[in-house]
Amino acid sequence: MFREVRKRASKVGQPPGTATFTGLKKSFVPRMTMVTYSEQQYHVATGTTLEECTSGKISNGLTWINIQGLQNVGLIQQLAALYKIHPLTIEDILNVQQRPKVEEFENYEFITLKIFLWQPKKLRFAAEQLSILLGKDFVISFQESDTPIFKNINERLCSESTQRLRQQGSDYLAYRLIDTVVDYYFLVLEGLGNQIDKIEEKIISDPAPQNTRTIYRLKRQMLFLRKSIWPMREVISHLLQGEEKLISAFTRLYMRDLYDHVVQAIDTIETFRDMLSNLLDVYLSSLTNRMNEVMKTLTIIATIFIPMTFLASLYGMNFKYMPELSWHYGYYIVLGIMLALAVGMLIYFWRKKWI
Amino acid sequence: MFREVRKRASKVGQPPGTATFTGLKKSFVPRMTMVTYSEQQYHVATGTTLEECTSGKISNGLTWINIQGLQNVGLIQQLAALYKIHPLTIEDILNVQQRPKVEEFENYEFITLKIFLWQPKKLRFAAEQLSILLGKDFVISFQESDTPIFKNINERLCSESTQRLRQQGSDYLAYRLIDTVVDYYFLVLEGLGNQIDKIEEKIISDPAPQNTRTIYRLKRQMLFLRKSIWPMREVISHLLQGEEKLISAFTRLYMRDLYDHVVQAIDTIETFRDMLSNLLDVYLSSLTNRMNEVMKTLTIIATIFIPMTFLASLYGMNFKYMPELSWHYGYYIVLGIMLALAVGMLIYFWRKKWI
Amino acid sequence: MFREVRKRASKVGQPPGTATFTGLKKSFVPRMTMVTYSEQQYHVATGTTLEECTSGKISNGLTWINIQGLQNVGLIQQLAALYKIHPLTIEDILNVQQRPKVEEFENYEFITLKIFLWQPKKLRFAAEQLSILLGKDFVISFQESDTPIFKNINERLCSESTQRLRQQGSDYLAYRLIDTVVDYYFLVLEGLGNQIDKIEEKIISDPAPQNTRTIYRLKRQMLFLRKSIWPMREVISHLLQGEEKLISAFTRLYMRDLYDHVVQAIDTIETFRDMLSNLLDVYLSSLTNRMNEVMKTLTIIATIFIPMTFLASLYGMNFKYMPELSWHYGYYIVLGIMLALAVGMLIYFWRKKWI
Amino acid sequence: MFREVRKRASKVGQPPGTATFTGLKKSFVPRMTMVTYSEQQYHVATGTTLEECTSGKISNGLTWINIQGLQNVGLIQQLAALYKIHPLTIEDILNVQQRPKVEEFENYEFITLKIFLWQPKKLRFAAEQLSILLGKDFVISFQESDTPIFKNINERLCSESTQRLRQQGSDYLAYRLIDTVVDYYFLVLEGLGNQIDKIEEKIISDPAPQNTRTIYRLKRQMLFLRKSIWPMREVISHLLQGEEKLISAFTRLYMRDLYDHVVQAIDTIETFRDMLSNLLDVYLSSLTNRMNEVMKTLTIIATIFIPMTFLASLYGMNFKYMPELSWHYGYYIVLGIMLALAVGMLIYFWRKKWI
Amino acid sequence: MFREVRKRASKVGQPPGTATFTGLKKSFVPRMTMVTYSEQQYHVATGTTLEECTSGKISNGLTWINIQGLQNVGLIQQLAALYKIHPLTIEDILNVQQRPKVEEFENYEFITLKIFLWQPKKLRFAAEQLSILLGKDFVISFQESDTPIFKNINERLCSESTQRLRQQGSDYLAYRLIDTVVDYYFLVLEGLGNQIDKIEEKIISDPAPQNTRTIYRLKRQMLFLRKSIWPMREVISHLLQGEEKLISAFTRLYMRDLYDHVVQAIDTIETFRDMLSNLLDVYLSSLTNRMNEVMKTLTIIATIFIPMTFLASLYGMNFKYMPELSWHYGYYIVLGIMLALAVGMLIYFWRKKWI
Repeated sequence: MFREVRKRASKVGQPPGTATFTGLKKSFVPRMTMVTYSEQQYHVATGTTLEECTSGKISNGLTWINIQGLQNVGLIQQLAALYKIHPLTIEDILNVQQRPKVEEFENYEFITLKIFLWQPKKLRFAAEQLSILLGKDFVISFQESDTPIFKNINERLCSESTQRLRQQGSDYLAYRLIDTVVDYYFLVLEGLGNQIDKIEEKIISDPAPQNTRTIYRLKRQMLFLRKSIWPMREVISHLLQGEEKLISAFTRLYMRDLYDHVVQAIDTIETFRDMLSNLLDVYLSSLTNRMNEVMKTLTIIATIFIPMTFLASLYGMNFKYMPELSWHYGYYIVLGIMLALAVGMLIYFWRKKWI
Repeated sequence: MFREVRKRASKVGQPPGTATFTGLKKSFVPRMTMVTYSEQQYHVATGTTLEECTSGKISNGLTWINIQGLQNVGLIQQLAALYKIHPLTIEDILNVQQRPKVEEFENYEFITLKIFLWQPKKLRFAAEQLSILLGKDFVISFQESDTPIFKNINERLCSESTQRLRQQGSDYLAYRLIDTVVDYYFLVLEGLGNQIDKIEEKIISDPAPQNTRTIYRLKRQMLFLRKSIWPMREVISHLLQGEEKLISAFTRLYMRDLYDHVVQAIDTIETFRDMLSNLLDVYLSSLTNRMNEVMKTLTIIATIFIPMTFLASLYGMNFKYMPELSWHYGYYIVLGIMLALAVGMLIYFWRKKWI
Repeated sequence: MFREVRKRASKVGQPPGTATFTGLKKSFVPRMTMVTYSEQQYHVATGTTLEECTSGKISNGLTWINIQGLQNVGLIQQLAALYKIHPLTIEDILNVQQRPKVEEFENYEFITLKIFLWQPKKLRFAAEQLSILLGKDFVISFQESDTPIFKNINERLCSESTQRLRQQGSDYLAYRLIDTVVDYYFLVLEGLGNQIDKIEEKIISDPAPQNTRTIYRLKRQMLFLRKSIWPMREVISHLLQGEEKLISAFTRLYMRDLYDHVVQAIDTIETFRDMLSNLLDVYLSSLTNRMNEVMKTLTIIATIFIPMTFLASLYGMNFKYMPELSWHYGYYIVLGIMLALAVGMLIYFWRKKWI
Repeated sequence: MFREVRKRASKVGQPPGTATFTGLKKSFVPRMTMVTYSEQQYHVATGTTLEECTSGKISNGLTWINIQGLQNVGLIQQLAALYKIHPLTIEDILNVQQRPKVEEFENYEFITLKIFLWQPKKLRFAAEQLSILLGKDFVISFQESDTPIFKNINERLCSESTQRLRQQGSDYLAYRLIDTVVDYYFLVLEGLGNQIDKIEEKIISDPAPQNTRTIYRLKRQMLFLRKSIWPMREVISHLLQGEEKLISAFTRLYMRDLYDHVVQAIDTIETFRDMLSNLLDVYLSSLTNRMNEVMKTLTIIATIFIPMTFLASLYGMNFKYMPELSWHYGYYIVLGIMLALAVGMLIYFWRKKWI
Repeated sequence: MFREVRKRASKVGQPPGTATFTGLKKSFVPRMTMVTYSEQQYHVATGTTLEECTSGKISNGLTWINIQGLQNVGLIQQLAALYKIHPLTIEDILNVQQRPKVEEFENYEFITLKIFLWQPKKLRFAAEQLSILLGKDFVISFQESDTPIFKNINERLCSESTQRLRQQGSDYLAYRLIDTVVDYYFLVLEGLGNQIDKIEEKIISDPAPQNTRTIYRLKRQMLFLRKSIWPMREVISHLLQGEEKLISAFTRLYMRDLYDHVVQAIDTIETFRDMLSNLLDVYLSSLTNRMNEVMKTLTIIATIFIPMTFLASLYGMNFKYMPELSWHYGYYIVLGIMLALAVGMLIYFWRKKWI
């Protein structure tokens, strides 16, 4: 969970703008997909080097380059040279522990955010970083891993020539990328919501010690989500409020909608957090309740039998001179006293509503 | 409770602006009511298709279309074409998991909010979505279900020709719709307030384990209400601060009043939340108190009788040579010691204020 | 406590601006006091109808009408007609569950706030609503009950011809009315503060279960006060920041002072809230402490005597062949072992600082 | 602690601007010190009446009047007449329950704040009010008591003719007065910090019930400090942001420094509050821990001996026909079973890590 | 931890601008490093007096003076005279208990912040103060101790003549100094994060009393970090928003990046705080859980054996006339009853899910 801090820490002493990949080494080979398109044309090329992709590209149109995997620092620096990307941007792209943010540079907007993917089997989410460079006629997206979350968009770009996606500018494409990422947030929230529902049911019906740990784990995940989704609000609001340069009025309407989605995600996270806190309260009070019940059982049994046992022990003493022992009804009298004691206690407990 | 998240999640991968109804399938047939009126005239038509309703309408006047049930996507798209409604608006209307919001479009304001209806038998509230399109000479309202909450308004429109409602523009009609919705909030708050009153009384007089669960359920409902009513403040304040285009000075005064009502609802929700938290504290402290009492009872009985029982057991031993056993007053001496022990303990407890 | 919500709820379905009194029916007859005065003149008339009061009034001067009791809706509507009061204002005056607010209308400012009166015998406060209409040459105040809290001001108006009150405009009179109301807040805070002092002393010296309930009740009252006094800050700040139209520079200095008083009241409420929370913590920890002590007593007695009792029981067995029983010093050896056990335990507990 | 509320309450019904001293009656005679000085000249006079002080004053220079004790209302009203002080200011000076604030009047700024003096023997602080009137060529300071906290400043004014204090205007003198007061805050914070250090050490090493009460008392003092020091930030920031009229650019640099000191004091208070809350948590968890240990001891002893005692009692029964009793090795078999039970229990507890 | 408060307290009564070193006396001799450089030239000199360093400096270029150790007040005052430093700045540099801040003076910006160094062996961090004076052609940095954290920067200045550092102005150098300090924060956060990870693991697997104290110590350190890093945000945002005078557009991009780092550090601190609070909750609930288990064990054993022991004691009584004792199967009947009791209890506990 503290990957960020650790990696950042490992860079102490390096000058700013140094291009070092700070993610975990992945086993796959970084891939690059280059799509060039205009309203009429569409061309796609996939490869591991820049040269493989640039051949056959459409000359006048929009370019979308999607990098999957950041290990190939050389490739990224080639792109940097081609599109005049600031060294700080390259550093931020490679440093996968960024806080979501948007930064304006001379010829592009740099947007970085987190992709969350729900892993239904592990009951938790995986996180990876996505950086987007939005230029006048290009969009470059850098994914940390090779999950094909933008497959849909590529397919739509390819087939639907009459659609908005081909007609609109690079800003609309960038919007669609972010929108896809935000849609995935709701899958994660659904997964977590289901877990909260389950734990809620358990705690209400049969609270067990491991529930605390589940709540703790969920809270921890919530902290992490929160940290990454809250800044998204600023990011999108910044894109919305920016000058008209890059975001068109058309896209702006869609961005506004996206903003609402992010706010809804944040609302849901906050509600989840509140629910988890409330559940912990319910759990703790049920613990205390249970202990109350346990103690009550002990107290009732003990306070009924202890005096009786004392009486029995008393007449178990071996003193030579104990007149009661030789009484004919001594035994029955003692039994009667014991019965009276027990009944008295039971009445006392019943009055106190303990039984 | 997490309908929102789930439904939103089910839309991952769809392009924005896709018209899909995300609510639960309802068994009734969606209905449409079209009211056209001016200060002098009034005409109403109800049906399930657009054609049934448009015949006989007044040509120059205001139009209020109320849709009850959103399953008939076709009908809604016909309306969209007629009134030039943006695809994003249609998507938002059909996606019944919206956060309350207001959005300006070229020829209308799009307002979406939640209707809460108190169900006295189930002791909880039902929620449904209401979307309002406020145009210059039309108001279109989309209800998720067929509850007749706007019946009153229609009746007033019909009968009271001399009243404000017929004289004022579409903005006043929209205000009246929202005002009705906000009035219903107070019914829900009344219902919840009554439940809080009851649980308060119980906790003060006789706290029981199920109280925690009731408090939890109430808190959960509060969370949900809160999430939907807080944004209403922004919505109305946005309508108030907007340019003069759609909201007249006359209606503005009423809107300001409505704003106060929403703030009062929010205040009440926050007070309820605080009260529930305080009640939980009272409950928990009463639990601990009770355990204290139980433990005290056990301790008093046990500490009085355990030493006495020991003494009795001691003289119940079968050693051949135990001189005390043959003392003539041995038994009475032991009884005396026991009594002294018991009285001593009682004095000790009495001094400690345990009895 | 939830009067507000309930009454508001009872109005669902009524058009806005309907004049309905939502308070409790009071047994007294609503009274009206009309004071007309200028620097030189002063005239007062009291009655139950408008006609009784208007005769004999001074023609050119300021008018202060004080209504005590809102049951007579007819009277209030007469006034409304006379002073051109907006229907929404009338509705708000009669609906005694308002949140404190100030609203500008064409010819007056509408101020509504709460009066709190400390009831020393019941150890709680009574609340009633006060609405003030501040016009250029009139002030109309609507009290919910007939408590004579403005008696002082009337007397001063009558006697002190050389004083500020007669020289200044209607704004200064309105200021004096609000100032009086705010002064009463401090009486309520004093009453509550005394109760907190008492409960604090009790909890520190001898905590008892009912303390939680007292704290709960005080917290509840605090919630209510808070809800009504926080908005007062906005109200007065709004009056201060408004245009120069109604509030003169002279009165403004006094208003600023009043603002400070309200802030001080709010500060005190927040301090009280914090103290009550802290007190609850002290109480809960003293509860746990107490239980600790109870348990310790039980544990010490039980762990000392249980092993000894076992030993005694052991030699109380009736086996035929138990060699120890016939030893000459068997009894003394066992007594010795018991003593050693007891002393060992005592040392153990003493080391653990339990005794 | 609630002096404020009480005194304010006692003024209900008085018109605003009434000059009443609301502090406790002090036994000393109010004193007045008048210093007049310019860069070259310096004159000081001390007395109990205005006449005693004004004789011999320097004609063209700055005047600093320091009043110690507010009981002599007449003296203060003489000053008010001399310097044209607004009645509200006089009321605020005499009402020693002010919230720190700064108010602009026509010919002066009115600043009121709290002096806190640490009393090392009582381990708490004393509070008194200080009001400062800052005019173009005069500074008047009103202390509630006669503590000589400004002695230093007077000495410096007297001796150091080459120093800033004599060269600068009245604004710099006022700054020095406030700076002295803020410096004293740090003495109080040091005193409280030492106490927190001590209680921390105690709670970590050997938590005792009275710790809660100490924490409570410290929290209470913190609440009071907080209430008085937070507004200081606004006060100084207001002085900094005001127009250039009274505060020169030279003094402004010093004021900015003072602002930082106040923020640091606030930071420290907030840190102390957090620490006290954390300490309470530590204390409560150590309480629960302790109870755990107590219970564990009881449970281990009881669960080991209770079954053994039962067995012993079993063979202590006096039935005529109990075959085991006459077995030759019966006693040893029972002893063996008991031993096995005890060892089994011990293993069980050891596995559970209870021992 | 309260060094600040104490040292500040010791200065009460001194006039502002007094140059007194408030840190702990260090054993090393303060050192001064003077670097003068331009794009082509570089000269460095180290010594303990100003004269040692100024000889041989480059005439037209940038000057960076780094002071390590603040004990030599004379040296610092020499510098003050040379660079026209305001007395308040000197006071703030020497008073090592500053809150991070930035202040504009006529010819320089004064920046003060905290350096945190992680001490892996002690598992905590050391704090020292760093003050930076940023002038048009000079940067003077004052370190409290002699840790060589700026060694890297000096080396880079020396060797890499073609690099940004030599080409850019004094603003970029200052940025690099602050950037280095902020990088060290991440080392501290990594160290604390590791500790949180460890304590988390312990609490989940095997909670022990000392965990609370560890959490408390971590929380305390967090409080201290928080207090010093939060203001850093303001500091850098102030530098970013200032006029163009000192910070060039080039450096501004880097500053923006630095701002993000600080925000990330703050986010991490807040997350850590939340995690520690959650861990405390987990720990407390596990404590209660444990006690529940302990109590359950006791209750089960006690309630099973206490009634059986009573029965056994009953037939251990020595009454002469107890008919059951002479029954032939009396012993077996009693054994049967005991068995039935025990089994009944076990079923009861099993149903209650206690076993």
